[in-house]
Amino acid sequence: MLNFQFSPIAYVTNTRKEPTDDNWGAIISTITLADEIPTIALENIELFSHLEIIYHFHLVGDGNFVYSRHPRGNTAYPEMGILAQRNKDRPNYIGLCTVELVAHDGRTLIVKNLDAIDGTPILDIKPVFKQFQPQSDTKQPAWVDDLTKHYW
Amino acid sequence: MLNFQFSPIAYVTNTRKEPTDDNWGAIISTITLADEIPTIALENIELFSHLEIIYHFHLVGDGNFVYSRHPRGNTAYPEMGILAQRNKDRPNYIGLCTVELVAHDGRTLIVKNLDAIDGTPILDIKPVFKQFQPQSDTKQPAWVDDLTKHYW
Repeated sequence: MLNFQFSPIAYVTNTRKEPTDDNWGAIISTITLADEIPTIALENIELFSHLEIIYHFHLVGDGNFVYSRHPRGNTAYPEMGILAQRNKDRPNYIGLCTVELVAHDGRTLIVKNLDAIDGTPILDIKPVFKQFQPQSDTKQPAWVDDLTKHYW
Repeated sequence: MLNFQFSPIAYVTNTRKEPTDDNWGAIISTITLADEIPTIALENIELFSHLEIIYHFHLVGDGNFVYSRHPRGNTAYPEMGILAQRNKDRPNYIGLCTVELVAHDGRTLIVKNLDAIDGTPILDIKPVFKQFQPQSDTKQPAWVDDLTKHYW
């Protein structure tokens, strides 16, 4: 099977040590560039208010997951393929979160609304472009509203 | 340096053979699951209108890039760190695009607004949750509006 290798470009520091499901809104995270990445990689990033953070669910990863399940195991929700939910037990264990940029100082960013725990390795950081947001109304099933009620 | 290995979970098929910058809006792409991924990984994905596609810029990747530059080399734009733009010549060569789901049939998805060329390996597919979109107004520099004028 084809393989790609990726290296962390940065790491998360925050007070969330365990991968629990809810209440991420109060967490303020620091993102610090990895030693290999020069400081100029963040130049002028503060011109943007929001960033997309692509990261690695580094505490999971034993490959033992099902490809379809009820989100959070709740049978009141329909059975959904793993690619039709955002659950961490997924092929390649990649997480993605849109965060609010609070501050940029040299090699560090302070961000809000990052749902990644302390020590999480980051694979990429991209600025949010309005033109890359959904260009038409989004539709989602009702279970998403229920599941995310206490997420932030 | 720490390394992670990822395998493609799907591949893109479309009529765009060259990695050119603009006019992606007219391209309709087919996404087909890799042989290793079972069909149920996409179960009920059609309940969502939009998906986030994380992919690999597989035609670039010689590691020779600068960490800060004027977007598209245009000196009318400010110099920006590579993590403050969405340019493909970036650490880990990861692309990310929000697409509109047109149809789901078994192991394939038909999508609009995917800015990836024919043959692109996909690392992850996630449904767009309204609750994961920016929860406050987004701010971006003026060069983004100019640069994306003909993107879609």
